[in-house]
Amino acid sequence: MTAKMKALRKMKPGQGLDLVEIEVPQIKPNEVLIKVIKRSICGTDLHIYQWDQWSANRLKPPVTIGHEFYGEIVETGDEVRHYKPGDIVTAEMHIACHHCYQCRTNSAHLCENVVILGVDDDGAFADYIAVPEMNIWRVPKEIDPELAATYDPFGNAVHAVTAGPTVGKSFLILGGGPIGLAAIPIAKAAGASIVVLSELIDYRENLARKMGADHVIDPTKENLPAIIKDLTNGEGVDVVLEMSGHPKAIKEGFQSVKKNGRYSFLGIPSKPVPIDIAEDIIFPGIHIQGINGRKMFETWYLMDALLISGKVDLKPLITHHFKMENFEEAFEIGLSGNSGKIILE
Amino acid sequence: MTAKMKALRKMKPGQGLDLVEIEVPQIKPNEVLIKVIKRSICGTDLHIYQWDQWSANRLKPPVTIGHEFYGEIVETGDEVRHYKPGDIVTAEMHIACHHCYQCRTNSAHLCENVVILGVDDDGAFADYIAVPEMNIWRVPKEIDPELAATYDPFGNAVHAVTAGPTVGKSFLILGGGPIGLAAIPIAKAAGASIVVLSELIDYRENLARKMGADHVIDPTKENLPAIIKDLTNGEGVDVVLEMSGHPKAIKEGFQSVKKNGRYSFLGIPSKPVPIDIAEDIIFPGIHIQGINGRKMFETWYLMDALLISGKVDLKPLITHHFKMENFEEAFEIGLSGNSGKIILE
Amino acid sequence: MTAKMKALRKMKPGQGLDLVEIEVPQIKPNEVLIKVIKRSICGTDLHIYQWDQWSANRLKPPVTIGHEFYGEIVETGDEVRHYKPGDIVTAEMHIACHHCYQCRTNSAHLCENVVILGVDDDGAFADYIAVPEMNIWRVPKEIDPELAATYDPFGNAVHAVTAGPTVGKSFLILGGGPIGLAAIPIAKAAGASIVVLSELIDYRENLARKMGADHVIDPTKENLPAIIKDLTNGEGVDVVLEMSGHPKAIKEGFQSVKKNGRYSFLGIPSKPVPIDIAEDIIFPGIHIQGINGRKMFETWYLMDALLISGKVDLKPLITHHFKMENFEEAFEIGLSGNSGKIILE
Amino acid sequence: MTAKMKALRKMKPGQGLDLVEIEVPQIKPNEVLIKVIKRSICGTDLHIYQWDQWSANRLKPPVTIGHEFYGEIVETGDEVRHYKPGDIVTAEMHIACHHCYQCRTNSAHLCENVVILGVDDDGAFADYIAVPEMNIWRVPKEIDPELAATYDPFGNAVHAVTAGPTVGKSFLILGGGPIGLAAIPIAKAAGASIVVLSELIDYRENLARKMGADHVIDPTKENLPAIIKDLTNGEGVDVVLEMSGHPKAIKEGFQSVKKNGRYSFLGIPSKPVPIDIAEDIIFPGIHIQGINGRKMFETWYLMDALLISGKVDLKPLITHHFKMENFEEAFEIGLSGNSGKIILE
Repeated sequence: MTAKMKALRKMKPGQGLDLVEIEVPQIKPNEVLIKVIKRSICGTDLHIYQWDQWSANRLKPPVTIGHEFYGEIVETGDEVRHYKPGDIVTAEMHIACHHCYQCRTNSAHLCENVVILGVDDDGAFADYIAVPEMNIWRVPKEIDPELAATYDPFGNAVHAVTAGPTVGKSFLILGGGPIGLAAIPIAKAAGASIVVLSELIDYRENLARKMGADHVIDPTKENLPAIIKDLTNGEGVDVVLEMSGHPKAIKEGFQSVKKNGRYSFLGIPSKPVPIDIAEDIIFPGIHIQGINGRKMFETWYLMDALLISGKVDLKPLITHHFKMENFEEAFEIGLSGNSGKIILE
Repeated sequence: MTAKMKALRKMKPGQGLDLVEIEVPQIKPNEVLIKVIKRSICGTDLHIYQWDQWSANRLKPPVTIGHEFYGEIVETGDEVRHYKPGDIVTAEMHIACHHCYQCRTNSAHLCENVVILGVDDDGAFADYIAVPEMNIWRVPKEIDPELAATYDPFGNAVHAVTAGPTVGKSFLILGGGPIGLAAIPIAKAAGASIVVLSELIDYRENLARKMGADHVIDPTKENLPAIIKDLTNGEGVDVVLEMSGHPKAIKEGFQSVKKNGRYSFLGIPSKPVPIDIAEDIIFPGIHIQGINGRKMFETWYLMDALLISGKVDLKPLITHHFKMENFEEAFEIGLSGNSGKIILE
Repeated sequence: MTAKMKALRKMKPGQGLDLVEIEVPQIKPNEVLIKVIKRSICGTDLHIYQWDQWSANRLKPPVTIGHEFYGEIVETGDEVRHYKPGDIVTAEMHIACHHCYQCRTNSAHLCENVVILGVDDDGAFADYIAVPEMNIWRVPKEIDPELAATYDPFGNAVHAVTAGPTVGKSFLILGGGPIGLAAIPIAKAAGASIVVLSELIDYRENLARKMGADHVIDPTKENLPAIIKDLTNGEGVDVVLEMSGHPKAIKEGFQSVKKNGRYSFLGIPSKPVPIDIAEDIIFPGIHIQGINGRKMFETWYLMDALLISGKVDLKPLITHHFKMENFEEAFEIGLSGNSGKIILE
Repeated sequence: MTAKMKALRKMKPGQGLDLVEIEVPQIKPNEVLIKVIKRSICGTDLHIYQWDQWSANRLKPPVTIGHEFYGEIVETGDEVRHYKPGDIVTAEMHIACHHCYQCRTNSAHLCENVVILGVDDDGAFADYIAVPEMNIWRVPKEIDPELAATYDPFGNAVHAVTAGPTVGKSFLILGGGPIGLAAIPIAKAAGASIVVLSELIDYRENLARKMGADHVIDPTKENLPAIIKDLTNGEGVDVVLEMSGHPKAIKEGFQSVKKNGRYSFLGIPSKPVPIDIAEDIIFPGIHIQGINGRKMFETWYLMDALLISGKVDLKPLITHHFKMENFEEAFEIGLSGNSGKIILE
């Protein structure tokens, strides 16, 4: 197969992307070729579009970007045993080495030698993508397949919510980007007694209410820690999920978390943040976790279970649809903050 | 206070109970005196009523029975600091010693020296009861206080459900007595993807559906393990809660649980049960737990959280109300199996 | 390569084995070919030799047996990336499918589709063996490589000991076969406060003392539960490891374990065992686990760490060496119980 | 009893202490009176002696200081049931309320209403001290009772070491004060594969070697993270225990910890420390814990088990003995850093 296809690529260092024609990828014996049906834009894609410091350090153009998608298998390598053409699938796009200490101790999401498709190698914002069989995830027939285009961020949110006890626990989510918003119904499905979201963009505040937040607080207008204490017998919440990366939010998280509570970090701050280790971590006995990616594949089974059972409804999170040709409009809306997930068809 | 009160007591070995007049209890400095408002009948009370082998070995008549109740504090001992007359409360009726290894390592529910009020000492089927301050639990104002009369069995069910991972997990509950029935909405609130109940009494099957079971199976009419395999991709359920005590159900539980799954036991079999340790435990890597009482007081906080948040609705579980004078009618209905929880007012 | 080699094979149903000449195996692209240097006899091999019920149900002769070994890589498949000829290695001989629920959730040791080399396909009691790269484990240069021939049972023991808290915990090991004996120094290295072994064969009792047991009890001559209570303030041990499969030992384990304690099962009983679920599991809140295989590869990293650091000394466990030609003598000693691990060179 | 006794007290705000005569305390019904035999100086006592900012904010003079000791019970209150005059005991000096959320969920060490004897109320640097029965810990007869005078810091170290998996794990301890030094043999007894201590004071470096450290690194002379990587296949240590409070050490801890590793904080920094949350916590998936006090009483049982079994030898940690009259000399040596634990007789 030497057919051509369209692909959204970073062709050289600098801002922007190009929609170009390249060859359809050749698959290896352990890979499948997938015709991509829908794609979803991640915050990482926005960083790459803008070519921030992280992108400049990490990417080696030219590369096809995009790592959130679903599609249909059209070809399978000789060693592929569990999938066949016609299967509707998505994929874990962190390609782990299966050999390092992390991979061999159930932490492939922290693989020392990871290759991320759409970052380190060609990704899903194209007509076709080649993915190793071990990374494929079958889209359950019971769910709207469009949701499978958001399994990557949905997985981040499930990973974060379920990284500790959830039943009967109170949650504060700092930041109403797509992962923070997805975490709302997940936490409730996982038994949270109360879920509070902190966010300052109106559009996202409204979306948070649609996703089921019990309280949505604008921390620039209200005293977040004081409200949290009021809602929790003065004790603070059991769990804080930090998804904003903002120093002020991070501090408010420490002021809002219960002694012996859990504080999980996902949002990437742009620089080091001063932390009062004595007062904010040691004396109250706080547990902090860095959350990275999704567990392969415990998190994926949970995602399926939460969607198939109807306990989580992610449809309100998908707010925009664009043709791939109109990617610039799509990326600009993504950058504005006035969106949930944006689908590229 | 040397006033008299009514109390439902086992006066001597043998079947039956007597409603008699005795003195209102004197409280110690660390106790509160509670005017009992409502009581609930436990399976243990039915065993005592019938005077089975366990009762004959354990009880030392005369003793006032009953350990599920709520009421109003009318008097507090000199050392009581956290409660006052007028407070609406219930209590953990396992009085722990606070000194043995179990008590000092967060397992007071397994105290070596436990005294159970209503079994080893005077209980709650009376107008008044004296309880140590450390065992008192304040009834949240947000809930119907009648539900607090069922905190003891509700706690057994919460303890059982939450004794391992629950989010996205499939549950099979063996036996639709009150604890099994209560476990249905608890499991769903705790994130269960699917909850199946096995029961053969029609009354309870109907109640199970009201409580939210996804499937109710009569194992005398259908092949329970086969149905479970159908519902779970052939893998079995993640969690089995054994609440029947029947050898056939116990075997069906082993046939229905997933490899690496959890099998929690609460139902008391009347005699030893043959278990195929190799095929049913070792090869599939099963985790078995004995569940006894409620954790003091993690379980109680969870109970409050589940009821206050509205995630669990226990009202359908309360099916009958009787005056204490009509206790014989109440106990006979309890023995018939055609009831949920029975309240004594 | 169509060279010939010697292999110890079950040629047809029935007792015994044959040392025959067959072709050296051809490797697949993802496999390595290993020249076997030393082998060790497992209890499973003894069962196959005797052709018990389990063997008759599971094996499909002809098949080369043996799954404990170490050797030197002499050839690597085209896709092998992490090993090269000359590497000294052993292997996890449970070949997992990497695709089932168990494999994808860190329980590959419970794989639904496992193929065990030496049982389901050709094993290590031969001059050469072919093994997939993902199952290879490099023998640390710091240890005597002969010990690597016992990584399989050593791994069972490490898996069992570390399946729950160990630091400051008291252990009772039921049965002094090789896995039980290996568990003694592992438990001590893992922080056990005291390790007691129950065994009735003199040879093994002596070996247990060499391995570091604090107490060795012959349960046919002494009252094991009474001694355990004496040693543990009347509370029982924190952990029981059942490695005998005997109903009497199993009951003594229940009589010896502390409330809230752990009871891990590895020894395979020949038939169902009556268990008093109420008195032995529910009331004391016991945690039971079936232990099967080794975790891939958490257990293997622990094995390396325990040996390299010198915290565990397994040398006394290796009591006999035979040439492969003298396998019948070796198997007969294994069947007698008067041995630790037996090496086939 | 209105007898007089000597007590080392902070009489008013400011530096220093006074050895004065006051009345022997009157015990309440739930307390025991202990004749103090030996005391040990804690870093907290040094802070109080110097009257640092924390002391000025927290203490309300006059108060008798000191919270590390052992002694003999000479009198028991009317409600005391488990101890009698003549018993040799020490005590958990955090007096918990037994009623707040933390106390009722196995985190009494984080009690919202804690009173620390020797800080908030009269402590142990006196001839006698009154302590509630629930806080008493019997000194095992198998150990040198002098060690019981150091149970408080020993407990901090046991709490820190055992706050996550230890078996086969590599440890880096930052800071060789008494708690850091005590953590060395504890980690080894708990199964650590390797224990490295970072410290820059010669006296403590030598002590660290006596306590069993595999490597002692002076981070001002050597590149600590580079050495750690060399010792751990380039992966970093599984566990870092931060016991120095120094920003440079804290950063070196992040540079030395393995992905998915544990970083436990005990050392109190004097001000907020900048932390690179993205690179140091989120991407490597680090688990951070604040460690405060000792678990009541899981940690205490572990302490007994580690000492009675002989797995931990704390004797080398006790480097100095003084009469209480010579307290100034004792405190000055404590402040110099040239000591392990200092006993006041």
